[in-house]
Amino acid sequence: MKDQFEKILLAVGFPPGKADTLARIFMENSLDGVYTHGVNRFPDFVDYVKKGHIRIDGEPECVHTFGSLEQWEGNLGPGVLNALRCADRAMELARESGIGCVALANTNHWMRAGTYGWRVAKAGYIYIGWTNTIANMPPWGATKPRLGNNPIVIAVPYRDEAIVLDMAMSQYSIGALKQKKMRDELLPVPGGYDQQGNLSVDPSAILDSQRVLPIGYWKGAGLSLLLDIVATVLSGGLSVARITAQRAERGLSQVFMALSLERYSNRALVDQIIQEILTDYSSPAADAGQGPVLYPGERVLKVRQENQTGIPVMASVWNQILTLA
Amino acid sequence: MKDQFEKILLAVGFPPGKADTLARIFMENSLDGVYTHGVNRFPDFVDYVKKGHIRIDGEPECVHTFGSLEQWEGNLGPGVLNALRCADRAMELARESGIGCVALANTNHWMRAGTYGWRVAKAGYIYIGWTNTIANMPPWGATKPRLGNNPIVIAVPYRDEAIVLDMAMSQYSIGALKQKKMRDELLPVPGGYDQQGNLSVDPSAILDSQRVLPIGYWKGAGLSLLLDIVATVLSGGLSVARITAQRAERGLSQVFMALSLERYSNRALVDQIIQEILTDYSSPAADAGQGPVLYPGERVLKVRQENQTGIPVMASVWNQILTLA
Repeated sequence: MKDQFEKILLAVGFPPGKADTLARIFMENSLDGVYTHGVNRFPDFVDYVKKGHIRIDGEPECVHTFGSLEQWEGNLGPGVLNALRCADRAMELARESGIGCVALANTNHWMRAGTYGWRVAKAGYIYIGWTNTIANMPPWGATKPRLGNNPIVIAVPYRDEAIVLDMAMSQYSIGALKQKKMRDELLPVPGGYDQQGNLSVDPSAILDSQRVLPIGYWKGAGLSLLLDIVATVLSGGLSVARITAQRAERGLSQVFMALSLERYSNRALVDQIIQEILTDYSSPAADAGQGPVLYPGERVLKVRQENQTGIPVMASVWNQILTLA
Repeated sequence: MKDQFEKILLAVGFPPGKADTLARIFMENSLDGVYTHGVNRFPDFVDYVKKGHIRIDGEPECVHTFGSLEQWEGNLGPGVLNALRCADRAMELARESGIGCVALANTNHWMRAGTYGWRVAKAGYIYIGWTNTIANMPPWGATKPRLGNNPIVIAVPYRDEAIVLDMAMSQYSIGALKQKKMRDELLPVPGGYDQQGNLSVDPSAILDSQRVLPIGYWKGAGLSLLLDIVATVLSGGLSVARITAQRAERGLSQVFMALSLERYSNRALVDQIIQEILTDYSSPAADAGQGPVLYPGERVLKVRQENQTGIPVMASVWNQILTLA
C-alpha cells in the first residue's frame, strides 16, 4: 500500500522525501483502522493536489516567536507535512521550557488528527492539538452548518505506547457517517437530524440534511466555536467561516501544544489511573451497544495488530487508486 | 449577600482578606446565575471548612518550575483562593513567554469553573483550564461512577467582556441535576440512565442510579479520562480514583493555562468570527427546545444584568445561611 501511494505521489510531482513521508502516514492511518483518513481519503488528497488547493512545494515557516508560543505560516503545503513539522517544533519548545505551543495558519487537512498525538506522546510528551475545518455542523439553535467539527486530540505516553483521544465535535465525523452509509449500517446513537428535524440514526438522512449533532448538543457546539476562535486568533489564519467561503477545505488553522514530562511530572501516575479506572470492569455493561471498557486508543492498538497480516481495503477504493498511478 | 457571606467566613476563622475575596466570588457566581456554585453551595463550603477538609490557613506555593510550566502545591487551602492565585500566575508566565501553564495539586473545589475563565480573558489572555472531581460518572461501557465530570473552561477576550465556555463532561453537572430536581423539572435532553438502564430525562432517577451521561456518550467519557490524567500527571496530585477513595471531594488536581495575545495575535478576529457565525441566526431554529443562537457566556451577561436589581435566592437556602452566622 505504501509503495503504491508513493508511486502516485512521485508521479504527481512530489519530491522523494515528501512522497515517502506522505505515503507512510496514509498507510499508517489505514493500518490503524482509520480508513476514512487513510486509504479511502487518498484519492481526494491527490485530487486536491491536482487542483492546486495543496501546494507540493509549500513549506511551513515560523513567522513570529514569543517565548514558548510561535506562529507559523503553512503556505498551503500538504497538511500532513506541515502538521508533523509543527508538532515536532512544539516538542522542541517544550524540551527547552516545559511547554510549547505552535499555531499554524494557511495549512491543509492533516488527515487523521490522532497521527500527531501518537507521535508526540510516543516521544514522551503530553500533546494537545486541534484543527478547524470547513463548516459542517449547525450552531445550537440553528439548522444550517456554520461551525466546523474541529477535531481535538489529547494524548499522553502510556507504557511503550500512548493513550490517544481523537475526537471531532460532531457525534460522528463526516468520514464516519460516509463509511456507515457506504456499509449500509445505522448509527448506534443519534448522529444528527433528518430533513424533518427529527433526531436520526440514519447516516444518509443526516448527510442529506447537513444537520450533524454536536457531542452533548449545545456543549459540543460551544466547544467547536471556542476551538475555532483560539486556532484562528493565535495563528492569524482563516476561521471556519472564511474557509467555508472559499468553497474548498483549504487554508486551515491549527494549534499544537506539547508539555514536557521530563523534569518532575510523574508519568507512573498514568499506569495507576488506568489500572484504577479499568479494574473491575473486565465484563461489559448490561446495556446493549456498550462494549467492554477501553481507554482511548486501546482499540487502535488491537486493529494495528490485526492489520499486520494485511490492511482491508474496499475493492472499489483500491481500483480507483490504481487508476491514479 | 456578600456582607452575609463575609460575616460567616470571619466567624468561622478566615482572616479579613480571604473572607472578602471568598465572599465576593460566591456573590459574583450567584450574580451571574450560577447559583449551584454560588449561594446554593455556600453552606456546603462552610461545612467543609468546619470538618477540616478545607484548611483556612492553607496557602498555595510553587514547588517546581521548568520554564513556562510550573507545579504548585495547594496545601488543601480554599479552592477558590488557590485557583485565583494559579490563574494569575499562568498570566504572569504568559506575559513573560507567550504561554504559561500551572498545574496545582492538593487543592479544593474551585466552585464555578468559569470564574477563572472570565478573570483571565477579561485581563486580555486566552484561558484553558480544568479540574478533576470526585467520581460521579461511569466510564463508557460501565455502570458505576469511576470518572469525574472534570469541567473544562476555554475563554477568550471579546469586546469589554469575554466568551467563556464552561462545561462539565457530563451532559448535566451534578449541580444542575440537583437544581432541576429541586425545581421539580425534567431535562430537555437525556442526562443519564435510570436504574433500569434506560436513558432518562428525570433528574431524580439519574441522581438515584448515579449513571449520568457523558457528553457525546463515549467521547465525553474519553475526554474526562484524559483531563484527569493530564491534571494528575502534571501536578503530581490525586487522580479521580484517589480523591474518591477519601470519600470526600478534597485534594483536587487542576490545570491553568494562559496564552498571550499581546504580540502578534489578532484579537479582532474574535469579533469577525462571532459576527459571521451569528449573522442570519437572529431567529430561533424550528426545533422545539432550541433557543436563539448564543455564544458561550452570552446568557451569563444577560443574567448578570438582570440580577443587578437583586439576586434571586430560594428562601430555604437563605434561611439555612442565616443560621450559619
